[in-house]
Amino acid sequence: MITSAQNEQLKTIRKLHEKKHRERLGLFVAEGEDLVNAAAAAGWKPESLLVAGENVDPDLLAGVSSLGSGTRVIGVYRQRWSSPGGDLAVYLHGVHDPGNVGAVIRSAHALCDGPVILGPDCADPWSPKAVRASMGSVFARPPARAGFSELSGTTIALERGAGLALDQVQAEPPVIVCLGAEREGLPAAVAEQAGMRAEIPLRPDGPDSLNVAMAATVALYDLGNRMAADG
Amino acid sequence: MITSAQNEQLKTIRKLHEKKHRERLGLFVAEGEDLVNAAAAAGWKPESLLVAGENVDPDLLAGVSSLGSGTRVIGVYRQRWSSPGGDLAVYLHGVHDPGNVGAVIRSAHALCDGPVILGPDCADPWSPKAVRASMGSVFARPPARAGFSELSGTTIALERGAGLALDQVQAEPPVIVCLGAEREGLPAAVAEQAGMRAEIPLRPDGPDSLNVAMAATVALYDLGNRMAADG
Repeated sequence: MITSAQNEQLKTIRKLHEKKHRERLGLFVAEGEDLVNAAAAAGWKPESLLVAGENVDPDLLAGVSSLGSGTRVIGVYRQRWSSPGGDLAVYLHGVHDPGNVGAVIRSAHALCDGPVILGPDCADPWSPKAVRASMGSVFARPPARAGFSELSGTTIALERGAGLALDQVQAEPPVIVCLGAEREGLPAAVAEQAGMRAEIPLRPDGPDSLNVAMAATVALYDLGNRMAADG
Repeated sequence: MITSAQNEQLKTIRKLHEKKHRERLGLFVAEGEDLVNAAAAAGWKPESLLVAGENVDPDLLAGVSSLGSGTRVIGVYRQRWSSPGGDLAVYLHGVHDPGNVGAVIRSAHALCDGPVILGPDCADPWSPKAVRASMGSVFARPPARAGFSELSGTTIALERGAGLALDQVQAEPPVIVCLGAEREGLPAAVAEQAGMRAEIPLRPDGPDSLNVAMAATVALYDLGNRMAADG
């Protein structure tokens, strides 16, 4: 039973709140039974697993949790990246919000066979917030890392003002839906290189944009449905 | 210039972090220039508007902000509810997360003409987190409140295992997409009374569910697109 806050495992968990330590150690943390169960279901073995009252004092565990009191279990896992692939995948560029990155990972797991490919300036998918937003889909479908120029397939830049409505897109797989940050969108240099540019039509009296995770999910749903119908 | 933390306007803003005070006073807070600008664009006049360095000490303003330091403006507004209506709308039942409620309000503003109708046990759309997640769409398209039995139109319960795929749904407007909480789904008594039951097909190796805001957005996109094509 761990009863000291100076315990090395607890110190490691505390460090893993910071990206620089996650990168250096190649590890990340999953907090809570749902995520730890999702890891086990996907065949991931923890590097360490702390269970309140079993092998660690509950207050000490709560003290290193990003969720605070009530945390019953924390697992430490080794990061795994997958490779780009699949008939339908997503590429994110400059999506800074970890909740959005995690949410797209969950939607991709639900709706397409390829991974979420993280380009430059995206939030760390192994942060506690991204892992939580993925609801454990980071384990079943780990993200990939690549620059836009490394993608192979039909790249579809999803952006306002593209002119072509998403539901008019006809594309042969493999297809990669490409999205940028909500305000900035994709860098012009990326959008220009994309195989196609398309948009989700929004109401003229509506907001300027959809949330990036919503837009990605709609695109995967629409393209995935029509690719399944064609295939 | 407000220079005392005991100022009544500051005290009111602090109180408005709590739902009971929001309900009692019928007011809510929008923090940050983007939201205050969205309010103005939608024609809402603030009950009070505090601007750091203009009429309030910046540190005092930061002290009553849910965002903390760096907050430059906070507006206090009177809650307005709209009435159910439109050719396409959303009904939420038991959606506890304010971020999800706000996100659905934003997506509905982008994709359909009706409001988000909040049934029992939903998060308060006037909480700071919901207002922020709506990105100001609460001003352009205020939510409505109603019980399921008060809805008039074709109600489509969106739920796992419904059998009918969303893209096979044929429904005459007005259409109301009905969603429950992510785990519990809609109460059985509600789902049974719905005019139709449909589901977003998910991959067999995927997660059990989509995030509720993602599911609502996909449904509005799909139904809205096809209603536009038919109309």
